Amino acid sequence: MAQSSLAPSGASHLSADDFSALIGAANVISDAEALSARAADWTGWSEAAPALLLKPADTEGVGKCLALCTERGQKVVVQGGLTGLAGGASCRKDEIALSLEKLAGVEAVDPLAATMVVKAGTTLEAAQQAALEHDLELGIDLGARGSCTIGGVIGTNAGGIRVIGTGMTRVHVLGLEAVLADGTVLTDMNDMVKNNSGYDLKQLFIGTEGTLGVVTRAVLRLSPHRPAVATALVALSGPDDITTALAAARRSLGPSLSAFEAMWSDFLTYMTAHAGFDLPLEAVPPMSVIIETRGHDEAAENARLEAFLAEGLEAGWVTDAVIATSVDQARRIWAPRDEGPAMYRQIFGGVINFDVSVPIGLIVETAAAINEEIGAGWPDVVRLTYGHIGDANLHFVVGFKTKPDAATKTAVDEIVYEAVGEVGGAVSAEHGIGQLKKAYLPLSRSDAAIDLMRRLKATLDPAGILNPGRVV
Amino acid sequence: MAQSSLAPSGASHLSADDFSALIGAANVISDAEALSARAADWTGWSEAAPALLLKPADTEGVGKCLALCTERGQKVVVQGGLTGLAGGASCRKDEIALSLEKLAGVEAVDPLAATMVVKAGTTLEAAQQAALEHDLELGIDLGARGSCTIGGVIGTNAGGIRVIGTGMTRVHVLGLEAVLADGTVLTDMNDMVKNNSGYDLKQLFIGTEGTLGVVTRAVLRLSPHRPAVATALVALSGPDDITTALAAARRSLGPSLSAFEAMWSDFLTYMTAHAGFDLPLEAVPPMSVIIETRGHDEAAENARLEAFLAEGLEAGWVTDAVIATSVDQARRIWAPRDEGPAMYRQIFGGVINFDVSVPIGLIVETAAAINEEIGAGWPDVVRLTYGHIGDANLHFVVGFKTKPDAATKTAVDEIVYEAVGEVGGAVSAEHGIGQLKKAYLPLSRSDAAIDLMRRLKATLDPAGILNPGRVV
Repeated sequence: MAQSSLAPSGASHLSADDFSALIGAANVISDAEALSARAADWTGWSEAAPALLLKPADTEGVGKCLALCTERGQKVVVQGGLTGLAGGASCRKDEIALSLEKLAGVEAVDPLAATMVVKAGTTLEAAQQAALEHDLELGIDLGARGSCTIGGVIGTNAGGIRVIGTGMTRVHVLGLEAVLADGTVLTDMNDMVKNNSGYDLKQLFIGTEGTLGVVTRAVLRLSPHRPAVATALVALSGPDDITTALAAARRSLGPSLSAFEAMWSDFLTYMTAHAGFDLPLEAVPPMSVIIETRGHDEAAENARLEAFLAEGLEAGWVTDAVIATSVDQARRIWAPRDEGPAMYRQIFGGVINFDVSVPIGLIVETAAAINEEIGAGWPDVVRLTYGHIGDANLHFVVGFKTKPDAATKTAVDEIVYEAVGEVGGAVSAEHGIGQLKKAYLPLSRSDAAIDLMRRLKATLDPAGILNPGRVV
Repeated sequence: MAQSSLAPSGASHLSADDFSALIGAANVISDAEALSARAADWTGWSEAAPALLLKPADTEGVGKCLALCTERGQKVVVQGGLTGLAGGASCRKDEIALSLEKLAGVEAVDPLAATMVVKAGTTLEAAQQAALEHDLELGIDLGARGSCTIGGVIGTNAGGIRVIGTGMTRVHVLGLEAVLADGTVLTDMNDMVKNNSGYDLKQLFIGTEGTLGVVTRAVLRLSPHRPAVATALVALSGPDDITTALAAARRSLGPSLSAFEAMWSDFLTYMTAHAGFDLPLEAVPPMSVIIETRGHDEAAENARLEAFLAEGLEAGWVTDAVIATSVDQARRIWAPRDEGPAMYRQIFGGVINFDVSVPIGLIVETAAAINEEIGAGWPDVVRLTYGHIGDANLHFVVGFKTKPDAATKTAVDEIVYEAVGEVGGAVSAEHGIGQLKKAYLPLSRSDAAIDLMRRLKATLDPAGILNPGRVV
């Protein structure tokens, strides 16, 4: 459903005036065009536009709005930068939208503790920049950095390209302020690495996609900025060598290893032959990988990377490689991986994207099996395979000439998610479950686990007003 | 109360035969001496010996025992290596003990994924050794490594000396199997770094001290073994320089920095002048710090450490330093810090130990204020101050000539915990809340937070059988 065609569903139990009395009329939006723009996340998929858009300017305002919604049974969709890819922030019928955009800004950076206090509506990029001003870095990075917000990053436990070196969002969150469905403000702005004083409640709000509470502020952990970056594009002799290369990179590059992005030949061939990107190698290899290291000394990083490549060339699993000698060359190496996925909606008539995890030792064969089955069923589709292999994360894309119908989408989804479930993989690696993957959650999680998720949901949000229908 | 004086409380609702029918008579212990040995953790504090000791040999057995306990309202204390320091595993009246000791052993190490599957009753040391056999290392280490078990380490989210480099236990746990109070087995043995498929339920069992479920198995994350270790004992010109040294160490040593252990002059003076440890420096400085780095190349680690020390000597905050040139010299540098705390119970007639966190910028002044207030109230006690400063973790020890009475203990506790609470610190940094710190939890956590902890407890353990009276 295209968002432009959506009118507000108009089924709010509550009026703009009800909320204006709580947070001021300027923070309650009922303009149809503004509401329509809040219907869907980056998938473009949505049931309806929200009946109202609330933009409380402070945590207290969030609390007042949620308290009223719980009291009156009004369903709420929580929205950040709308860059999600699982329909979590896409609106359903009879929902009003709660945007954190007015709770924006970095409140403080503490260079000594290497921490940052940031409001939920701040973009990831703004937070990254604020850290850099103190010669510190935030170990979270993703393509949507300019649009996605800290609240959404935390709510979805976002991953991204740096996870191999710095971990998922969860490990960067030291403290959190969240508002419960009943309006209770839970302030737990811990800034200490060691704190075992009772249950670590912030975990309830990280990666639960706004279903258990609304993140309003956070304390994030920072680390010294590592300005020296070395980047290589490495050709491997075959797909199976990706695990050999990974083990060697972990051993030789250690904590410097900041990215390890595998690209199957289908991906790099399409990107260079059809999508217009440069190929810095003589030919597309059967498997290639972008390897990046970060540290404080450029010469040391390059030397480390060269030693690693020499080891691979001697052993035979590396067949060719190019190390970037300028920022521009590094950008060209990254371009297909960085910019390619953003082009799918332009270059394909329809696209089905997968973000799954598969145990590392089974990634290559699982990808091959999926690829073959989809190729057999739909011979003329483009298939692109790549991923953050060090994190067990596989991305698989099916590009159609025209938009696939619902039955086709379901058939393709089932092939991929069932194959992933069979090898003990995860139906969502980093994008979350949202609405779009909910049907496949039982392929990755047990009945007992899903039952416990539901009991947690009922405990924290007994009226079921917060992002209902997402995750569980 | 000394554990040797405790007889079984005998108030179990259930008999040995009830459990023998479930897990076999060999796994149900009712011998008085054996029960007495299970009364207390390392604090020696306990209310009673357990009425029975259950040692199920598998997860299924744990489930059967807990299901029966929930059905009959039988309270259970969960026990690992009994090395806790907060009375969490110390028995209360009318409890039976559940030991995980028969669920021991490393099931598998996956060198490619760099993961390990381990049963809860395995000692930390055995897990560390199994990783080393594959040239990998587990980033968790603590003094009690030979006795503490993985289940206890996870249940308490244990910290230790390596947290500055590798983080708390929580970040090393990828997957978990836990048994709920009603006997439900929750198997979530994820081995993939990226997995956002629904709520991350394992977080409910990490650091909740066995109050929400019993950990039976885990998947732990490993990293390449770093055999090259450089160790220095560094004299600083004054206590305030500890934060300058920390910031410089983070910047210069980066991810190599694997320990940063501050020792106030009271600690190092006592350890060298009275407890018999060598002092590798000419005199005890006003503040000293053990700095350790880890990597793959010994020369590189030493060079890095030397460059850091040269920077400090030039700037004036380092006044003296010694870099270990042998494993034995490194051991001697570590000895007061490593072995001193284990001697407290021998060298003092009575001792009160504190394990708190304080925001890094306030540690020195908070420690000084506490020290002064206690010195004013009890002029003849020994006070020892040290800590994992990089993690905001302060250890403070009050040594008495004779065992302090309960009123004295409470008065000293209140001085310390109130001072910590006032600066937004944590009443437990790494040892947990257990029974002994429960009264002080409200100094670190809000009413709303404690209320939510209680609601979680009621959701997961409605009969209140699991480690009752601990944490909340």
